[in-house]
Amino acid sequence: MRTVHTERHRLRASQTELYGGELVRPFECPERVEHILARIAEVGLGPVEEPRAFGLDPVLRIHEAGFVQFLETAWADWRAAGYKGEAIPTSWPSRRMPRMVVPDEIDGRIGYYALAGETSISGGTWEAAQAAADVALSAQAIVAGGTRAAFALCRPPGHHAAQDMYGGYCFLNNAAIAAQAFRDQGAARVAILDVDFHHGNGTQAIFYDRADVLFLSLHGDPQFAFPYYLGGADETGEGPGEGFNVNYALPPGCDFARWSAALDDACARIKAYGAEALVVSLGVDTFEKDPISFFKLGSDDFTRYGARIEKVGLPTLFVMEGGYAVAEVGINTVNVLSGFEGG
Amino acid sequence: MRTVHTERHRLRASQTELYGGELVRPFECPERVEHILARIAEVGLGPVEEPRAFGLDPVLRIHEAGFVQFLETAWADWRAAGYKGEAIPTSWPSRRMPRMVVPDEIDGRIGYYALAGETSISGGTWEAAQAAADVALSAQAIVAGGTRAAFALCRPPGHHAAQDMYGGYCFLNNAAIAAQAFRDQGAARVAILDVDFHHGNGTQAIFYDRADVLFLSLHGDPQFAFPYYLGGADETGEGPGEGFNVNYALPPGCDFARWSAALDDACARIKAYGAEALVVSLGVDTFEKDPISFFKLGSDDFTRYGARIEKVGLPTLFVMEGGYAVAEVGINTVNVLSGFEGG
Ligand SMILES: [Zn+2]
Ligand SMILES: [Zn+2]
Repeated sequence: MRTVHTERHRLRASQTELYGGELVRPFECPERVEHILARIAEVGLGPVEEPRAFGLDPVLRIHEAGFVQFLETAWADWRAAGYKGEAIPTSWPSRRMPRMVVPDEIDGRIGYYALAGETSISGGTWEAAQAAADVALSAQAIVAGGTRAAFALCRPPGHHAAQDMYGGYCFLNNAAIAAQAFRDQGAARVAILDVDFHHGNGTQAIFYDRADVLFLSLHGDPQFAFPYYLGGADETGEGPGEGFNVNYALPPGCDFARWSAALDDACARIKAYGAEALVVSLGVDTFEKDPISFFKLGSDDFTRYGARIEKVGLPTLFVMEGGYAVAEVGINTVNVLSGFEGG
Repeated sequence: MRTVHTERHRLRASQTELYGGELVRPFECPERVEHILARIAEVGLGPVEEPRAFGLDPVLRIHEAGFVQFLETAWADWRAAGYKGEAIPTSWPSRRMPRMVVPDEIDGRIGYYALAGETSISGGTWEAAQAAADVALSAQAIVAGGTRAAFALCRPPGHHAAQDMYGGYCFLNNAAIAAQAFRDQGAARVAILDVDFHHGNGTQAIFYDRADVLFLSLHGDPQFAFPYYLGGADETGEGPGEGFNVNYALPPGCDFARWSAALDDACARIKAYGAEALVVSLGVDTFEKDPISFFKLGSDDFTRYGARIEKVGLPTLFVMEGGYAVAEVGINTVNVLSGFEGG
């Protein structure tokens, strides 16, 4: 399988994550990519290629222009305001503050566009996010060109980013941008299967009222897991999108038997839907040793489910999302891809 | 003028505020009260008295029971989860995450109940917040007993706290609790005049649909100032409360001439409303040297506006809110009270 990757991911080099009331080194770190590349080489998965530059047009098919502008200038604006740390929001339009106007002050603007505060914006964040979108679009082009599957080694990840919100380590929704590219190139129906431990709240929000993109997510029950405020099984889409959003909210301690039963159901729905392309939001934080998650998949389980996804029989784009057990992130990620290849 | 105060405010001793991407010592610090007490003694304002204990009943007339329960247990739950810092939310029900279910995990629950993230919850926070409500209720009882005015030296402050949200250094809305006590004791109409630099978003939210409490706030335009997502002049109340919420959103650099013109308008509205009691949310962060605000009031202006408030002619309860130019917070606060007494 061909992989698209760029070293520009290193521009995303935030030094602080707000975690447990402290500022710690981010769980979402550059070494994650190093481990995945090493494992790709070790097993001989296939060539690793540079992305092409697609510009902002395909990004703006998904993201609101004001939000993109915010991401481009946030770090410079934050520095100009005299703040000394990395950019972290301290307030937001809460349940009791419904004034939906974008504030002028960067301190207010960042809260308007943030869905979470663990994720600092730092110098280079925007450049890396844009490069990740190019990685996704370049790998999408490989699949659209007739290759059965490709791997977009995106970093930063994307599935928490909504049309106009960032957070959960995500800025641009790489998987959504790639799915939209399939649609814009003529695919009538596209499915996005999100197997990251966390609910793909951004992807859900983006396609919630659309029938042309089926979104399915297997994830930790939001009653117990980030992003907490979206991801319930009762969220099934709205308007024309009703019935085209499927959430599998799984409990703490969920093992592979239970998880793969949900995957089987999801795969059956993708086939029944008649998708012409499949985008997989591939996070491996379902791993039993992941430091911030609570599922119990072993490394061999990743190989098994890669083979299961192959059985859906669709042109398939894998887009990298999360996975924070850094030493094993390469093994688990490449196991999915190898499982697909051998499936 | 009689002041109600308790040293239990010192139980609110958080060590971290999230500010500019760093964890700094909180602007809302115990020394604020020390300076106010010293100035009260210096000018001989009047006796300083201990509060009585009112229990939770008057608190629950304003705040949602689940929220109060959260505040009582948040610190213990946070510690039990193994987090090492003070309790700070990292996610919240954002604009694109409308699932309004209280999560089980403390990391999700704290975000559900938070309207801002600068304010850490630490050991003793709940006890201090409850003591501050007792201070407000004790001073309210003095005024309800026939004394023209009293000063509730509350700390932590309260006006940002909504019926089920904390933030902006506030946990229980002391002014709202006291206003409700006036109502419950027979006052037909009560006015709350909020002269803190920041919009009293919590007080607004609590009384937004009620005609029996008129809320008026003079504050920094939310386009440029916390709390950003509430406080516009177009927010006038809803349902039966339509017309009983008045926001004066004032620009950066606002001087006393402009500010006092807004105050004159507010005082005229309070008289026209026929209020039987007045609660003043007294923040002195309108001061020209305040480190987190942008109005330009000088210390003498506080004396002047205290006299202006006296002219409204109502039984008046002053409830302490913000003010972060610590060295001058005593002078400016007591100037308002002295101005009222000499008015
Ligand atoms: Zn994840
Ligand atoms: Zn204030």
